[in-house]
Parts: sequence; structure tokens; C-alpha cells
Amino acid sequence: MTLRHSNEDAIVAKIAKRAKIVPNGAMARESLACRIGDDAALFQPHGRQQTLLSCDWFLEGTHFLRGKHPADSVGWKCLARALSDIAAMGGKPRCFLLSLALPASLTGRWLDEFLLGLGRASAKFHCPLAGGDTTSRDVILMNVMVVGEVQTGRAVLRSGARPGDLLYVSGRLGEAEMGLRLLNRGKGSANRKNPLTKKHLYPEPRLALGQWLANRLASAMMDLSDGLSSDLPRLCAASGVGARVSAAQIPRVQSSARYFKSSADHLRLALDGGDDYELLFTVRPNQAGALPRSFRGLPLTPIGVITSRKQIVLADEHGRESSLQARGWDPFRSD
Amino acid sequence: MTLRHSNEDAIVAKIAKRAKIVPNGAMARESLACRIGDDAALFQPHGRQQTLLSCDWFLEGTHFLRGKHPADSVGWKCLARALSDIAAMGGKPRCFLLSLALPASLTGRWLDEFLLGLGRASAKFHCPLAGGDTTSRDVILMNVMVVGEVQTGRAVLRSGARPGDLLYVSGRLGEAEMGLRLLNRGKGSANRKNPLTKKHLYPEPRLALGQWLANRLASAMMDLSDGLSSDLPRLCAASGVGARVSAAQIPRVQSSARYFKSSADHLRLALDGGDDYELLFTVRPNQAGALPRSFRGLPLTPIGVITSRKQIVLADEHGRESSLQARGWDPFRSD
Repeated sequence: MTLRHSNEDAIVAKIAKRAKIVPNGAMARESLACRIGDDAALFQPHGRQQTLLSCDWFLEGTHFLRGKHPADSVGWKCLARALSDIAAMGGKPRCFLLSLALPASLTGRWLDEFLLGLGRASAKFHCPLAGGDTTSRDVILMNVMVVGEVQTGRAVLRSGARPGDLLYVSGRLGEAEMGLRLLNRGKGSANRKNPLTKKHLYPEPRLALGQWLANRLASAMMDLSDGLSSDLPRLCAASGVGARVSAAQIPRVQSSARYFKSSADHLRLALDGGDDYELLFTVRPNQAGALPRSFRGLPLTPIGVITSRKQIVLADEHGRESSLQARGWDPFRSD
Repeated sequence: MTLRHSNEDAIVAKIAKRAKIVPNGAMARESLACRIGDDAALFQPHGRQQTLLSCDWFLEGTHFLRGKHPADSVGWKCLARALSDIAAMGGKPRCFLLSLALPASLTGRWLDEFLLGLGRASAKFHCPLAGGDTTSRDVILMNVMVVGEVQTGRAVLRSGARPGDLLYVSGRLGEAEMGLRLLNRGKGSANRKNPLTKKHLYPEPRLALGQWLANRLASAMMDLSDGLSSDLPRLCAASGVGARVSAAQIPRVQSSARYFKSSADHLRLALDGGDDYELLFTVRPNQAGALPRSFRGLPLTPIGVITSRKQIVLADEHGRESSLQARGWDPFRSD
């Protein structure tokens, strides 16, 4: 007999073959000393660089729905959202590992389309597949492990904010959540051309911006994945500070009014909407002049200031202050 | 108000706090430039080393049962089995990332016991926790990402076997599978003192042996996680060779006969039993003399030879040959 490959091996071979279609052969050779399928991936670090490591769940039923989210969007997004953590540290992607569990019935067309979206993201963000693990399961489970690099000492942590620093966000907040609402309202296949739906289905990690800000401009940085009201307290806790945010300054969804009950709804969406993958960062007041109003077309908006009082305060347009409650995504919240 | 931590943050804080209890503070400081809880972990590679990266699913219902497997064994095993991939490359562990999804109802005692077992493995194998991801789910899902290191050019791949090389295994095969059978037969809590049950619940990755073999002795290596009959074809396929295995030489369970119907059952268990995490490796014939019969008390047994004919052949004690069918663990097998 000739060597018989098991079903699992056939699926690994399919993933490896598709991963090679991505036009990043040169990168793959540079990063990885051996091909997919050995016991572990071999990664060659560059000199004077620290390695960035992050992993992210992406689970059917929790993070996406099989019936609502096109398979190619699941493939794109599982990598893009993981890379947002590399962007948030100011790093460059090097490679990723994919752990995938799925029903045997989805190893045909669904897996093909998934790999198409994954391959597009891999090529666009210069991040080749290096390895992973595959198993069978009744629901689709994913864990994506991304590897990045940053010049030693240049990573931007959450802990660098000081009282007086100005607080900024990139892009507009709440767009991805609005896109999800549109997707949930729609019947049948998703309208991928609507820019809000597109931001939910095919998010773009802010890698170029993160790398640019890491060049001595940002004092602290993180990505907004759970929503500003949940993520800002994390940055403040890590830095041992508080913040005062001006509600009127928060950049929000620009969309026809028919989707909204009131302008307060606009604001809540910007405060609590998840999945935006924009960057939240702080800049020393004497460096704020060096920051443009946009970076490659992406708005950079000052939304408040870091304070020594360890509270997160939201000020309305009349200057009235209230404490900002964390109402973003929390998988363990029971209320 | 003071900064309010979300429930997810409280769980991350608990994991981070327990991880620090492990007496590996020095290692953690050396490996990691920032603490758990930033967007990504910062890893400082050593000079002239390649980084080894591997990730492993460990899923309730697929890889363990909540009612059968003690929580501390789940914690130990999720790390130990992932580290077996580092052992199989001849590497040293540096750190790991834990992605954990679990029901909110298990974030008390179950999580405490889980972290106890995880912490013991982390200390024993000198592998500190560097980061991860946490979410809520109705079943327990884990993905463990391990980071190791190996001197550049010294990693032992699956692809290095040549015709004429001798084929070896460490330890005895089928023990963990036998331990699982004993566990399934038993009612109530597991008998952790039985050595077979212990091998199933608390496996030991062969890190010291792997590092020793990587010092120019092994030509190819992998770990046995799915069973010899499934894993040997993978090593042979990667090397473009075949193998002839002598059934009588395969080291197997030494246990009272009452668990077995026949000696053929002994052999099948050794061929197809999963979860042993022993090392399968090849040695050039002129180097076989340098290999002792055991390494630190662990038997090293020659079980066959690598052939140029791309078949996996099993020879019985009378020299009769048959093709070895892959009957180890395959999550996608439909029969």
C-alpha cells in the first residue's frame, strides 16, 4: 500500500496548500525555517527586535453566526481582529497560527470560502500562516495566534499615560456595531457594499498608524475591541490614572437618521459598540502639535484628557459631568 | 466612582495573580518585558536562537470530560501536551499563552483547581504564563500556545529520516490509553495513584530527552500524540520514506493480564493508543551505538528501520509482514 493520509492530514494539507496561494512566499521563507506540518513552527527573530505574541478566540455563536456571516468574512475577520493587538503595540505582523475546529460537513465549500477570506487578509497584512491545530467539532471554533515584531523598547503599552496627556481615537466609533445591526435586520445574504456592514465583516487593523505612533508619539495605546466605555478604564487602570472625555468630541457614525431614535443613541453606540478595532492612544501635551488631524485619510480625534483622579468622567456639551459606566462587550456580565 | 472592573477583567486578574504564585518569577522577568493584560505579550528572544511556536486545542467533550477529569489534571495536561511539541523539536520552553472559554459558574472553585494544576506544570517545566484570551461559553474550551527556543539550525524536524536509519521510541506505548480505560471503568473520582491513570491525567513531555537527542543524535523526531500507527506515517511522509516495524519489539503496557483479552490487545493498544506523548525518533545506523538503552530511567527502544519503499510494514515474531493501518486518533474519521 502507499502511505494513507488520515482525514485530518488531508484537511491540514488543504489549509497548507491554500495558504501558499497567498502571494507572500518570500515573506514565508524569510520568517519560517520549516513548512506547516511539523510539531512546531520555527520562527527566526530579527536582531534588536522583541517578539509580540497574542491570541484571540473567534467562536461561532459568541463572535459570529454561521447563518449571518459569510465564510470569507469569518476567515478575514479572525485574522484581522487578532492583528489589531499587534497594531495596538505599534508592531509589524510576522506570521500567525490558526487553531480550527469544525464539523466534517463544513470541510468542503465552507472551508474553501473561509480560506479565501483568510488568504486575502494574510496577503493584505503581510502575515503568512505558520502552523496551527485542527480538530472536529459540532460548532466552528477558532483561535488565532499572531506573532509580530517591534524594535526593542519601542512597544507602546497601556501603562504609559500620565495626567495631562491628551486622549485620541482613530476613525469613527460605533460603526461596526451599527454594521452588525444592519446585518441582523437584513434577511438572507449580507450587503457587503454598505460601508458600515463592511466595517463589521471586514475590519482593517490600524497597523500603519500603530507603527507610526510608536515612533515616540504615543505614550500609551490599545485597540478598541469591546467599546470605548469598557476599554478606556483598562488603559486608565494600567496607567494608574483617570480620564475626562468630552461627549461632543467623540467621532461617531455618520449615517442617515432613520437608523437612530435620537442623537443619544448615536452617542451610546460610539461609547459601547464593540468590534471597531480603532486605536485609543494618549500623547504628551507638548507633542500634540506634531499630530495631524488625519493619518492616510483616517481621522485622529482628541476626545479628552488624562487626569490624576482615578475616575472616568463623561462631560456633555454643557460641561455637566457624569461617571462613564462600562457597557461595552463583557462575555461574563450577568445583567 | 472608582474604576470599575468588568467581570472579564476580574477573571483575567485572578489568572494573572495565580500565575505569579508559581515560583518562576525570575524566568518570567527574563522572558517577558511586560505583564499580562496588555494587548500582546512582549517576548525577548535570545541571540542565535530560533523561536518554536505551537498551539493545541484542549476541548471538553473532545479531549476531556468535566465529570471524569479532575480540574487540576485539565490544567496540568493542557500545558504538558502542548509542551510535548516543543520536546519533539528538541527545544526548551520559554512561555505560554492560554485561551480559556468557560461557563461563569465554573469561575470559582473549578477555575481555582484548574489554575493549581496549570501552575504546577508551569513551574515544573519552567514555562511561565505570558498572556491569553478569556471568554464565556457553555462548555470549557482551551487553546494553549507554547513558545520555545532552539539553537539556530538544531531543531529536529520530521523530515530528516533516511533509509537505513533506526527507528526508536521512548517509554512504553499504550499506557495513557489504558489509563483512560481505567478512568472510564471507575466510578466517581479518579484513582490518581495508579501509574497508568496518572500517565493519562498528568503526562510528562519528554523535554530533557528531546534536547539531548537534538544534540546531533536524532535525524528526525516527532511526539506520539495520536498513536504510533497514525503518527509514524506522518514522519515517513515528511521524510519521503517508509518503515518496517517489528511488532515484538514495541514496548507496551506492563500490567496484569486481567485488563486484556489477549496479547494482540496489548499490541493494538501500543499501536493505536493516543496521548502517550513519548518521542518517536530516528538515528543514523553509525550513530546507534552512542544511544543508551535508557535516558534518566526512561527506556529507549529500537522498534524498526526506515526503508526507501514508501510503505509502513509491521512484521510479526515469525517475520510475516502486513501493512500497518492508521487506527490512532483522527477527529475527522467517519468510520
